[in-house]
Amino acid sequence: MLNPADETLVARLPEGVLRPLTPAYLEEPRRRVQGRAGLVAAPRNVDEVAAVVRACAEARVGIVPRGGGTGLVLGQVLPDIPPGGPAPLILSMERMTALRGIWPEENVLIAEAGMTLQAVRDAAEARGRLFPLSLASQGTAMIGGCLSTNAGGVTALRYGTARALCLGIEAVLPDGRVVHDLKRLRKDNTGYDIRDLLIGAEGSLGIVTAASLRLVVPPPQTGVAMLQVPDPAAALTLLALAERHMAGGVTAFELISGQGLAFLTETLPEIRQPLPGVPWSVLIEVGLPEGLPADQALEGFLTEAMARGLVLDGVIAQSGQQAADFWHLREHIPEANRRIGAIASHDISLPLSEIPGFIQAAGAAITARTDARLNCFGHLGDGNLHYNLFPAPGRNRADYDAERKALSEMIHEMVMARGGSFSAEHGVGRLKLGDLERWADPARLAAMRAIKATLDPLGIMNPGAVLAPARG
Amino acid sequence: MLNPADETLVARLPEGVLRPLTPAYLEEPRRRVQGRAGLVAAPRNVDEVAAVVRACAEARVGIVPRGGGTGLVLGQVLPDIPPGGPAPLILSMERMTALRGIWPEENVLIAEAGMTLQAVRDAAEARGRLFPLSLASQGTAMIGGCLSTNAGGVTALRYGTARALCLGIEAVLPDGRVVHDLKRLRKDNTGYDIRDLLIGAEGSLGIVTAASLRLVVPPPQTGVAMLQVPDPAAALTLLALAERHMAGGVTAFELISGQGLAFLTETLPEIRQPLPGVPWSVLIEVGLPEGLPADQALEGFLTEAMARGLVLDGVIAQSGQQAADFWHLREHIPEANRRIGAIASHDISLPLSEIPGFIQAAGAAITARTDARLNCFGHLGDGNLHYNLFPAPGRNRADYDAERKALSEMIHEMVMARGGSFSAEHGVGRLKLGDLERWADPARLAAMRAIKATLDPLGIMNPGAVLAPARG
Repeated sequence: MLNPADETLVARLPEGVLRPLTPAYLEEPRRRVQGRAGLVAAPRNVDEVAAVVRACAEARVGIVPRGGGTGLVLGQVLPDIPPGGPAPLILSMERMTALRGIWPEENVLIAEAGMTLQAVRDAAEARGRLFPLSLASQGTAMIGGCLSTNAGGVTALRYGTARALCLGIEAVLPDGRVVHDLKRLRKDNTGYDIRDLLIGAEGSLGIVTAASLRLVVPPPQTGVAMLQVPDPAAALTLLALAERHMAGGVTAFELISGQGLAFLTETLPEIRQPLPGVPWSVLIEVGLPEGLPADQALEGFLTEAMARGLVLDGVIAQSGQQAADFWHLREHIPEANRRIGAIASHDISLPLSEIPGFIQAAGAAITARTDARLNCFGHLGDGNLHYNLFPAPGRNRADYDAERKALSEMIHEMVMARGGSFSAEHGVGRLKLGDLERWADPARLAAMRAIKATLDPLGIMNPGAVLAPARG
Repeated sequence: MLNPADETLVARLPEGVLRPLTPAYLEEPRRRVQGRAGLVAAPRNVDEVAAVVRACAEARVGIVPRGGGTGLVLGQVLPDIPPGGPAPLILSMERMTALRGIWPEENVLIAEAGMTLQAVRDAAEARGRLFPLSLASQGTAMIGGCLSTNAGGVTALRYGTARALCLGIEAVLPDGRVVHDLKRLRKDNTGYDIRDLLIGAEGSLGIVTAASLRLVVPPPQTGVAMLQVPDPAAALTLLALAERHMAGGVTAFELISGQGLAFLTETLPEIRQPLPGVPWSVLIEVGLPEGLPADQALEGFLTEAMARGLVLDGVIAQSGQQAADFWHLREHIPEANRRIGAIASHDISLPLSEIPGFIQAAGAAITARTDARLNCFGHLGDGNLHYNLFPAPGRNRADYDAERKALSEMIHEMVMARGGSFSAEHGVGRLKLGDLERWADPARLAAMRAIKATLDPLGIMNPGAVLAPARG
């Protein structure tokens, strides 16, 4: 049943863009909130996206952009309809899945926003190239969402976040104008960086409809190892040693805690663990030039690391299968976490040298206040930790309802006091609006609000995401 | 002699910030135009910068930010004072030269805007790190200017442009508010990318006063070679081969034309040329991991390249001195150009696969229209060519006054028709305002204007740079 605003809106939409509003459009992965919406539109091309945006602007209907729906900060769901306002329209990119072109000799590909990250990676691989962005959710996450949230993942250490992999965009601005800027250029200094403004804006300044993406030639030699380290401080010294040995060839450097391994043992016992039960370990992947076999390079590195006491034990993958097994373990830590059921999750980053002190101080503070279990893991090479709390054995999530907020605030305070970030790679969405208000530099926040107000004066673009709606 | 606006302004400025207005503040490297100014302020810290900006805002006096003054597009000089308006104030960063901190174990350094690029590189080197941005003008160019113009240079292929090397900024906005965002983080997804908006804005949205910069561990093995290639198409295939061999280890890949070598012979005969007289050559630098000597890697690469006909002749540097000599040659091509005296210079970029066709077609079109000599050289790995025209022997620059504009337009039209850029790394400044108006995507240009109007409603920040002043 449509309300009057929707009837006007429907009449203005391009023919055939509407889709049935099924529950899947209203979900987010952790199922903590349920979105609300009036209509779902799935345009087939950028002109239809522009037409939908213009129609929504005329009808003053909010737009909630939707990619693969894998975001973790509620950027893709609007749970509360503004009082008196019409329900928003969900703008799904699911039909814009074309590979517009690939130029392997240029290391460039142009993808529409609805291509999954996996599809982009596959398209590159089919032409002998690598699109290096890699996330656990890559089979579902769409490239438009990856850009709109500046996704990070496990290879950011070497290749950067999504931002660093984007050369140009096509996007629809809140007034329906289309930015056509799908350049295949490495250098283009012609005015303000509108591309990077839309990247990471989580759909609140416009809709990214396509992007030209940077590919790389896959390294001829790759190697993976799992290494037991004495503690996080040693892991950081080990990272510096790896960087010195590998000349930029460290692709990933992931920290794994003993609690993470224990959760895997508990929930996914079929996953093989090469270093079972160790308190701290690291998964390292390297990609190296022709003429330097990866196992040889890793062995030289490991010999020095063990001599210096930075590594206590280690396994270098002896086959592609074993390397895949190591990654399989790492990538199932979030799944094990889901099965245990987190009390609270924190996607934090810290200056590298602050990490050991933070892990020690925050761990002690948590132990002093609660019996919750802690799983601290993540992309150590980027200073990015997933710092998550779980119920003690025999208790459940709801038992911690009273202390959740205070624990999270304590953790964020300790992070921010060390020059860190309360959202390293997931974004702000609607979940972290309060954190942004509290922690962002005031002048930067004022500039953000001014830009939002000037580009989206009607406030229709992903209302309430990143910035709270302007108070009237 | 001060005009009334200046007297009011002087009274509002922090004590001791004014400097004598010497001619050096009004110059740009090619000496084509002379700037105008009323006052010169050289603040000692960010609070003084903010005070100067607030005073200028109150007095409605324009601000022309000045770093090392090496820009090539007139971003640092305002030749025409707006009718009826007061002369602008030059805001020089010359006194903000502190290294605020260096964290080698994090690969991070925080520099004030007035540090020269060379000083930043030296500070990193003193702690065993490399700040990889590298430009011919690095002894004079300041880091604030490098960021404000998103400088590129010879290592962008591997390490990116200035934008990719900046983790955070401190900046003064046009209303005098200070953005304090000197984070030392690799990942921080907390709202709009104000940092990248100021980077490349050429001082027209605010003043960058300090930056946290990304360092790298220098590769343990480096090697340099000069290689004769049959033509630009072969050079591109050679680049792809190098990328496949080196796994991201290609640091620089510079194209040199026979005309460039001839200009060196003519103006700087003392510079040794390892491949004298060859029509096309490439300077390649690689940085490789422990265990893979660079000369061994280059030899393997060169053997395959010669077998495939991609290289006709080549010299691998046998010592650090010889490597430095090769770079000395490359870096003196701009100096030779200056001595010959260009008719017109074009800082263009193209999609890599368009380069051979462009070089052929543009070369033919120029030959058909003029007797001018062409020196086409540059950062081939980035698709960035410096495509410059010079007088025929016995003629001089002024002889081409009548045809200069049409030749440049023809070149830019051929570049833009191939999806290229009319300003790859130098920026827009005041020189390329017309090009931006003509070639920029209209929706992107509209977004730029909206952002300028909302952040700088008085139009005081580097007036007339990047965007023409709003018409009343």
